Amino acid sequence: MAKDLPKRSENYSEWYNQIVIKADLAEHSAVRGCMVIKPYGFAIWEKMQAALDKMFKDTGHVNAYFPLFVPKSFLEKEEGHAEGFAKECAVVTHYRLKTDPEHKGKLIVDKDAKLEEALIIRPTSEAIIWNTYKGWIQSYRDLPILINQWANIVRWEMRTRLFLRTAEFLWQEGHTAHATKEEAIAETEKMLGVYAFFAENFLALPVLKGVKTANERFAGALETYCIEALMQDGKALQCGTSHFLGQNFAKAFDVKFSSKEGKLDYVWASSWGVSTRLMGALVMAHSDDEGLVLPPKLAPIQVVIIPIYKKEEELKIVSEKALQIKKDLEVKGLSVKYDDSDNRSPGWKFAEYEFKGVPVRIAIGPRDLQNESAELVRRDTRTKEIVKQSDLTAKVESLMKEIQENLYSKALAFRKENMHTMDSYDDFKKAVEKGGFILAHWDGTSETEEKIKEATKATIRCILIGEKTESGKCILTGKPSQQRVVFAVAY
Amino acid sequence: MAKDLPKRSENYSEWYNQIVIKADLAEHSAVRGCMVIKPYGFAIWEKMQAALDKMFKDTGHVNAYFPLFVPKSFLEKEEGHAEGFAKECAVVTHYRLKTDPEHKGKLIVDKDAKLEEALIIRPTSEAIIWNTYKGWIQSYRDLPILINQWANIVRWEMRTRLFLRTAEFLWQEGHTAHATKEEAIAETEKMLGVYAFFAENFLALPVLKGVKTANERFAGALETYCIEALMQDGKALQCGTSHFLGQNFAKAFDVKFSSKEGKLDYVWASSWGVSTRLMGALVMAHSDDEGLVLPPKLAPIQVVIIPIYKKEEELKIVSEKALQIKKDLEVKGLSVKYDDSDNRSPGWKFAEYEFKGVPVRIAIGPRDLQNESAELVRRDTRTKEIVKQSDLTAKVESLMKEIQENLYSKALAFRKENMHTMDSYDDFKKAVEKGGFILAHWDGTSETEEKIKEATKATIRCILIGEKTESGKCILTGKPSQQRVVFAVAY
Repeated sequence: MAKDLPKRSENYSEWYNQIVIKADLAEHSAVRGCMVIKPYGFAIWEKMQAALDKMFKDTGHVNAYFPLFVPKSFLEKEEGHAEGFAKECAVVTHYRLKTDPEHKGKLIVDKDAKLEEALIIRPTSEAIIWNTYKGWIQSYRDLPILINQWANIVRWEMRTRLFLRTAEFLWQEGHTAHATKEEAIAETEKMLGVYAFFAENFLALPVLKGVKTANERFAGALETYCIEALMQDGKALQCGTSHFLGQNFAKAFDVKFSSKEGKLDYVWASSWGVSTRLMGALVMAHSDDEGLVLPPKLAPIQVVIIPIYKKEEELKIVSEKALQIKKDLEVKGLSVKYDDSDNRSPGWKFAEYEFKGVPVRIAIGPRDLQNESAELVRRDTRTKEIVKQSDLTAKVESLMKEIQENLYSKALAFRKENMHTMDSYDDFKKAVEKGGFILAHWDGTSETEEKIKEATKATIRCILIGEKTESGKCILTGKPSQQRVVFAVAY
Repeated sequence: MAKDLPKRSENYSEWYNQIVIKADLAEHSAVRGCMVIKPYGFAIWEKMQAALDKMFKDTGHVNAYFPLFVPKSFLEKEEGHAEGFAKECAVVTHYRLKTDPEHKGKLIVDKDAKLEEALIIRPTSEAIIWNTYKGWIQSYRDLPILINQWANIVRWEMRTRLFLRTAEFLWQEGHTAHATKEEAIAETEKMLGVYAFFAENFLALPVLKGVKTANERFAGALETYCIEALMQDGKALQCGTSHFLGQNFAKAFDVKFSSKEGKLDYVWASSWGVSTRLMGALVMAHSDDEGLVLPPKLAPIQVVIIPIYKKEEELKIVSEKALQIKKDLEVKGLSVKYDDSDNRSPGWKFAEYEFKGVPVRIAIGPRDLQNESAELVRRDTRTKEIVKQSDLTAKVESLMKEIQENLYSKALAFRKENMHTMDSYDDFKKAVEKGGFILAHWDGTSETEEKIKEATKATIRCILIGEKTESGKCILTGKPSQQRVVFAVAY
């Protein structure tokens, strides 16, 4: 096993924890619950950001920046919102330190610098943004507002895991304002579509699109749409949410507009976000016992070239060819690393880049020069192939597509294998233990949902969008149901 | 005057405050000292970020992300650093709110959720980063570390101004670790060069490169390098700093490495940053009484096309041509807006885009179609020209360069006019009142520096790099001096 990584089959949870650290994606910081995102991990996040940012702009959104702080009184204004977030708020109470008169070189909080009103570090920005929108919106001419922000967020968590659940995380949050309910819902659904497209085409991760039950809804939303993916251990991971907020925040912050007809009405809203949690999804979806497996579209290094040589003169000749290959690939827009470092053996480098999930590895030595060939290994299947140098660029280019598609197909096949329809509670319970998505009937009450959760740990991940209705009986209570919903144990 | 903007000559300070708000760059938020960066302002910042980020990467740096929070005990570790920042720290003391038992719907800070150790919101990240580097560095093989992070920063300020001085601001901070003093100094100087290049080639702003006096040094640095620019009111603005930190932080956090020769030594460090303050520099350097003037390289909209028409049919024909022109320009990589909104007159649009600083405006109507021409106005000189449609793309492309260069030349000429050498204290004081940079002799003591500041408000902006030495007498004390330094009243 690479770098003493536990096997997924033996301890999936520990496998995840270790791979994140050993592949240099992130580590725990000295601050409780906060992570350091290391350069290699951050480079992947930057690729995600770039792709998402382009999709947001292509759908008419612009970026802006709102304050880190939310006054306590703002958070209070939308009742459900306040209740939902109060318990995980980091609170700023003072604005100055001073030297400790009793301990030289130490600092203490200056009691004289207490804020009149406590400031919350944004756990999400609806409150501060809707208070701002109030000043921007008078007429239907000011609508829609289609704004996104990239920001850091703090939600105090007691039990944290790198990327999946951290006190501070990075995300984007879209906050839109509309003249009509229909338009706001259309926006909410459109952005869910953007997230699903991103997950499937960049993360290579198939997702279910659905809406949350009342229990699992965002605090302050009328409807929460979500994308849900299945990890290799059979647990579900929520990968993005898009909320239809109705007029809740407009009412809380008194944001009205005059319509074309001159009528005053509250503004309609949506908000939507994805976070560094997607890094966790990426790792858990594709990686294996040998380390990371990255889809080419998000890999910081798409191709690594490693020289094989014994003597200095050999390296010189090999390097010349390798650098030519690198250049040819870069012309095609690929990001290529040539690792000619002299303190590591080729074997060590093979293992290292395999562990880091680099999609394609090229090795080239004196014998390859003679044969005008190179050795090529793809990370996803770990198959090796000797390729003519003249075919190399075209081969690598097509491999990028193939690997991207193969990862998606594999994940989709896995999900199909692990998505079952259950009709009796006994079968349901057994299925929950095995893991995967379970389609089952539910009577529509929060009470039943909670009972099932308590008994099995499975929650309703979503009610699928566009799924056909089907009469049936609730798996627990036997009461009538019109549609199956998706259950799973989730991260 | 556009949008009731005060004239610069009458009230420069108020002109600045109003232009930032009226041009939709930023506004004050409900949170004391914090700003909202509006989409138009943020689009400029994004252009700055993209250009800088590319320059950082081209010079071998990678991005990462470190926690927002700095434990109080970390801040204490480097004494000078602690003293420098203690008075402006936002302090998180609690991690939970609860419902107020006495007031329904209100939240209060939960006294039971007090943090054992207060957390500071990063006023800069040396402390948290060097504590992290400790775990990353054992040998010279681990060096150099060349990391940058884009982040939000909080320094509590009592008197704030949009972009120039805000409690929360956005910036980038580079933090590098090196095996030798020489390498760390070379890095510090290299990044100063990157900043100067960016200022001159993107902001179109000539800058002086120098080092700070001990008084003005970054808290914890051995040497602070800076770039200083002159604003139109004759005041100086520090636009970026690069610090040689010596081994101060390595010693504070016990970060040692074993050298090639197997010797243990403390690591050498640099840090460097520019912030959203550059947005203020951009506005103050070039804009005029008619509104913003943006250099083409940072303008979110480089060209605006406005149709002139009376009847619906005319608009249709004009639009067809206008959209063709837009496409031709976009092919050349220009960002173009075609504003055919029907609720505003062409005159209103002219004024609006002029106010927003769009470098080039094209107006096109039925008569232009007949003549196969278009009207073209450049924002910097406000000169109007009729251009053949067949020449339009080439003309606009060359204008982009011309305008960029013209703004720089104008700013450079302004600085030359307002940079004077003074030899008597009386002349010096008169010169300070007029504004501008003043080259004068100084005896090298903090005491003299402070006395001059108290008497005139002028501070030593920097000691120029590469300036020839020249024997002289201190402007205040008459004591011997080996070099003139740059004085100015600064923002």
